[in-house]
Order: sequence, then C-alpha cells, then structure tokens
Amino acid sequence: MARIVMKFGGTSVGDLDRIRNVAARVKREVDAGHQVAVVVSAMAGTTNQLVKWCQDLSPLHDAREYDVVVATGEQVTIGLVAIALQAIGVEARSWQGWQVPIVTDNAHGKARVEGIEGAELIRRMEEGQVPVVAGFQGIETTRNRVTTLGRGGSDLSAVALAAALKADRCDIYTDVDGVYTTDPRIVPRAKKLERISYEEMLELASVGAKVLQTRSVELAMKEGVRVQVLSSFEDKPGSLVVDEDEIMEKPIVSGIAYSRDEAKVTLRRLPDRPGVAARVFGPLSAANVNVDMIVQNIGADGSTDMTFTVGRADLPRAQDILNKAKDELGFEALVSDPEVAKISVVGIGMRTHAGVASTMFKALAEKGINIQVISTSEIKVSVLVASDYTELAVRALHTAYGLDA
Amino acid sequence: MARIVMKFGGTSVGDLDRIRNVAARVKREVDAGHQVAVVVSAMAGTTNQLVKWCQDLSPLHDAREYDVVVATGEQVTIGLVAIALQAIGVEARSWQGWQVPIVTDNAHGKARVEGIEGAELIRRMEEGQVPVVAGFQGIETTRNRVTTLGRGGSDLSAVALAAALKADRCDIYTDVDGVYTTDPRIVPRAKKLERISYEEMLELASVGAKVLQTRSVELAMKEGVRVQVLSSFEDKPGSLVVDEDEIMEKPIVSGIAYSRDEAKVTLRRLPDRPGVAARVFGPLSAANVNVDMIVQNIGADGSTDMTFTVGRADLPRAQDILNKAKDELGFEALVSDPEVAKISVVGIGMRTHAGVASTMFKALAEKGINIQVISTSEIKVSVLVASDYTELAVRALHTAYGLDA
Repeated sequence: MARIVMKFGGTSVGDLDRIRNVAARVKREVDAGHQVAVVVSAMAGTTNQLVKWCQDLSPLHDAREYDVVVATGEQVTIGLVAIALQAIGVEARSWQGWQVPIVTDNAHGKARVEGIEGAELIRRMEEGQVPVVAGFQGIETTRNRVTTLGRGGSDLSAVALAAALKADRCDIYTDVDGVYTTDPRIVPRAKKLERISYEEMLELASVGAKVLQTRSVELAMKEGVRVQVLSSFEDKPGSLVVDEDEIMEKPIVSGIAYSRDEAKVTLRRLPDRPGVAARVFGPLSAANVNVDMIVQNIGADGSTDMTFTVGRADLPRAQDILNKAKDELGFEALVSDPEVAKISVVGIGMRTHAGVASTMFKALAEKGINIQVISTSEIKVSVLVASDYTELAVRALHTAYGLDA
Repeated sequence: MARIVMKFGGTSVGDLDRIRNVAARVKREVDAGHQVAVVVSAMAGTTNQLVKWCQDLSPLHDAREYDVVVATGEQVTIGLVAIALQAIGVEARSWQGWQVPIVTDNAHGKARVEGIEGAELIRRMEEGQVPVVAGFQGIETTRNRVTTLGRGGSDLSAVALAAALKADRCDIYTDVDGVYTTDPRIVPRAKKLERISYEEMLELASVGAKVLQTRSVELAMKEGVRVQVLSSFEDKPGSLVVDEDEIMEKPIVSGIAYSRDEAKVTLRRLPDRPGVAARVFGPLSAANVNVDMIVQNIGADGSTDMTFTVGRADLPRAQDILNKAKDELGFEALVSDPEVAKISVVGIGMRTHAGVASTMFKALAEKGINIQVISTSEIKVSVLVASDYTELAVRALHTAYGLDA
C-alpha cells in the first residue's frame, strides 16, 4: 500500500473521454490498494481563453481579478473528475484551493505556496475517499482571495500536495511518457531515462526540456518528493525523478539539452575597472531581465570584451537599457545576436570524472561547429553556438557520450 | 444618493462588448452619486455547457460536484466585470458566494439563501467601491461547500443581496424592457406597466410571464425590496415591482397571462366518498408531481368526475401513478389532454370589483372559445381552453379589459 498523488495536465483532461480515462487510471491505483489524491489542470485551451478575455478587457488588468477568472478552469475539472470517479464507483470529492486550504503569499498571478493543510485530506484518504484537488490555485489568507501560481503551476501544486500528504510518490501524467536523454524529435534514438536526479532534471528543465515546471522540481528536491513522469495515454512506466542517492549507477552524462530562447549580447571594449560588472547587470536585474551565461576575458590596454546571454524576448529591453547607459559604462559598441542556441550536457557523474568538457569540444569541432561561449557548473557544461547548428550539435553530443539507444 | 443593486443576466454579459456596456451602465449610476453593488449571471450559454458536461459524465451526478462545476460560470463574469469597471476608472472588487458569504442550506443544485453578511460590503460601498457579486451561488457552512440556487437563481441572489444591503432598489437588467400587460409577441398593442404589485407579479410569473424568477418575487415581497425590471440594451425606464400601497390607482386587471405548460387529467366516475381526493393527490405529491387547477363537481349516483392539471412534462408520470392505483381509487376511466392552455387575468383591483369573471366569460364566449375548467383566487381568474385558442383568447381578453394601448 502506497500513498500516491496523481497529477493530470490540460491535455490529459481535454475532453470528457479523456476525463473518463483519467478516472479509470485513478480507479486502477485505488483497486490496487493505494491511497490516492488527484491534482488536475484546466481542460486544454480553457486557461488561454480566460487569459485572453482578461487581456482584451484591459491589458493592465488587476491580477487579483485575473486570478478569480483563470482559477475557474481547474474548478470545472475537479468537479467533472469527481463525477467521473463516482460514476465508476470510486468515492471522490473535489477540493478548491481555498477549501484545502492551499495557502499562498499574495503575489497574484505567480503566487508561492506557503503551506498546505493536509490532515483532513489524509483522514479522508485513509477512509478510502479520493480527494480531487484543483491545481494552479490557492488562497491568500489576509484578504481571503483566490490566487494562482503562474503557468505550469499545477505541477507545483501536485508536488507541494505530495509533500503535505507525506505521499510515497507524485505521478505527473502528461503527453510525453518520460524524460529522455534528449529531444526525441531531434534524435530518434534518444532513450527514456528510468531514473534521473533532481539536480539533473533541474538542469534539463531550465535548458529547454520542459517536461516539468522548474519550480516544481526545486520543491520536490527540497521536500524529498519522489516524482514520476509518465504518459496518460499509454500504459508503461515513466521516468522517476529522485535523490541521487537512489541512483545506483551514476552516468557521467545523462542527457543533452538545448534552448533557442536566448540571445547573445557583447559589450566591446568595456573599461576593465572594478565594479563595472555591477554597473552593467544592476540595471538589467532591476528591469527583470534575466542574465544567464556571462563570459569576461582578461583584458588588454585597460579594456575588455564582455559577453552574456539574455532571454530572447528580453533582448530589445536589454539593448535599450544598455544603450542609454553607454556613456556611463564607457563601452565602445554593443553587438547582439539573437540567432544563438545553448547546448548543454548534464550529468551528476561528471562531478567525479574529468574529460567531459574536452569530449564535448572535440565532438563539436569534428562537425565544424564553432563554440561562441562556454560556461560550466558542477553537473553541466553549456556552450553557445549559432542556432543553425542546434540539431547537428545535439546529435553529435548524443552519440559522443554513448547515449544512442 | 441611493443604494442600488444592479443585476445583469446572461445575455447582458454574453460577450466582452456587453460586459463593457454593463460597466458603462454601472459607472453612470456611480457618477450620479449612488452606492452600487452589482450581481451577475454566467455569460449566456456557459451554464448550459457546464450542465451538459455533468449530465454526459453521469446522469445521476453528485449535486455537490455539479455545484462546483456550474458555479464557475458566474465566477468568470465577476472577475471580467470587475476588470471592465477598473478599466474605466470605477473602483471594483469581485465577490464569490463563499467570500461574502452568502450562506445557504445544503440543498445542492437548488439551495435556499439563509443569510447574507452585508456589513463588509456596505463599508466598502460607503468608501466608493463597487462589489461585483456572483449570482446563483452560495456556500453551505457545515461542510464549507459551494452551492447553487437553481436555474434563474441570480435574480434571487440580487434580491437577497438588496435586502441584506438595505438597498433602496434592486434593478434587474434583462433582455426585455419591463413587465407588459401581456406577451407583446401575441398582442403588439400590449402596454408596459410602470408599476405592478408583488402579488400581481407573482401571479404573472407563475403563469408564464417569465420576466422574474418566482422565488425572487416572493423574497422581494417578504423583505420589501423594490425591484425594477429594465432593459440592458435600451435607455428607458422599466417596470417597478413594489408593495401595492405604493400603487395609487389600482387597476382591476393589470395583465393577461398564459401558459401552455399544463396538461389536463380527468378521472371519470370516481366514487364520491370522503377522503377520495386525498387518495388521488397523495401519491402524486409524493412523486413530486405538482397539481394546479382542481375542479370537482357535485356528483350523482355516488360518483363524480374530477379534473385537474399537472405540468405537461409530468403527465406520463401522473398517468402511470393513477393507472396503477385505479382499482384502489375505483374510477372508471382516466382521460388526459395535453393540448390545453391556461389563460389568466390578474389584478389587485379585482378584490374590490365584482364582474371580472363575467367579463372574461363573455369575451371568450363571443369568440366561440369553450371554457374547460375555471379556477379563481383573490387577484386572479384562470380558465383552461384548447391550446389552439391561446392567442385568440389572450387578444380577446386584452381588449375586453381595456388594456390595448
């Protein structure tokens, strides 16, 4: 007997047949003797429609009212899933965020979960009832208003609920059947990973393998929630995201990720003085422009070239801010390039193995791919290349690290 | 300065343009110095879709989950209306049933309002904020679950809120511009009534003039809430539903109503014994079959014919119940006729005036319309005629009582 949180995303509850399918899957776990809580998203397309209505009425709408409107999507699904479960003989009850309660801060539209009261749900699960909980939403208790957690927030709801319920596992049902060594659309021979560590999942998620929302992985790691990613349309085991202690054989490289969402900015002949970096990145950060890779070489004759990446959508804003500060910063020219891709190799095993980076550089060189920027972390090596080379680079690295099935 | 509750139905908030129109109307009242609370229904069509989903998943769905699903319709509208109001500079905030709270009993799907906590809303209205309250929904507080008041329940929400807020008026905006002496589709010369008493409105509503939900009129009468019915699409005064003391000149007949929703049942040669009526109507009532007009004449040779009407949709059930009890009841034959219409003349003035009924019978006789059943109350005379004669009868009576414009 295990206690399981099962989370179903928007495509998994996209119509009544799919909702019946969800109910059947839940029943199977209940029949196997497990205690089950369900977390669901809005039916696919619903949230977009609701967001658009708010936007159309007022681009600068009140986030508190936006939350009232968009939270209805999940509310519809919990009621329908509860009805579908009851129809096949599974005792079920729906729970909105304010009913559990799932308490959040008051950052409407992107609230953070502060706490979940799990006792009553545990009591009901022990009596055989299946709580069907609305994902993505909560309540801020100072003003008693509905909040939402931001797009993709249902994953976060599921992990937070699993932690509060002391669940043995949090199963995230989605339209892919697990986490792969890389994007199977680029490398058909990509393999599904049976197990992957939180740290690896985080690195993969943050560089474009959008199977799980990043914040939900962070929370799972912090709370020690074992997460399984699996398909709601097929019947096969998925990928388990766990603490690295649970992974016996630690691969040097677990996967190859890529992201085309970045743009490169170079400040040419920036004065090489203490404090110059702070003066460059302070205003960007103040304007909520996220800066990712930063490279600065030792300069010559008192100046240096500094290169970094920003989100591609933020590039015009970054250019604007930096050009306005040109005289103050004292650089000679700003050169930007949105046609770049970040390619990363990720693996907890590389901590204890040398040679990961050199394998990477060699593999890319053999294909004639020029590396523009390099950045490394404990379990990741990332390079920036011209975006035309994305697929070629991913395939070359997938082979070079022996990941091909 | 007055305190007004403005209620907008589903067609009045059917799309974003109409929601902007609602906001503009609210702003006009606010700009005139009034304190305003708004009650809204779901966008037209939404509730039907949500109900259908519940039905399709399970015809015998849990009413508690049905309420969770259908209550979302109004929740969407309150958020959108609040955004639309803020966009034109009106301070506004949405309120769901559980937030106000609007406390109901636990009869899910058709709950009754037990109380509304109005103090916080009044405080905010006095500070210039417009509360936008979800109609149709409430909360039952023993289990903290969302309830709905049944179809048309937003009128009831508005009247109950007006009572709780001690509002001077409850304006019901709808797709007709008031209450007419009869259906203008049948009698183009029908007149809009400036004022009508609660009692008359009730009789008109219950016999087919579905401008206001019956329970909302009952509540308005009980709580002394002045209700105005007016169009959300045109700019002209509507009809005021008030206590009859507020009506100076009491017309003998205020309006002519009709209903095609009834069916006639006759039990031939029913034994004329004490208690027989109870044995006929007891089982019907137990099966929730509403019986309306009942006529029983003095019998001869120990038996009588009894005629009554039931809702047309209930006719098969009524026939079934009575035929099963045929031996016990001892009647000779059951004759039914679904092709009947009930025509009523309504007016508080008829209490003090004789001759209302005879005018009616004479007018119908002149057109060769046969009266099948007659029933009278203090302020109403109703007859049953063959349904083919409905329009002819309504027109004849409208003229006979001098109601033609």
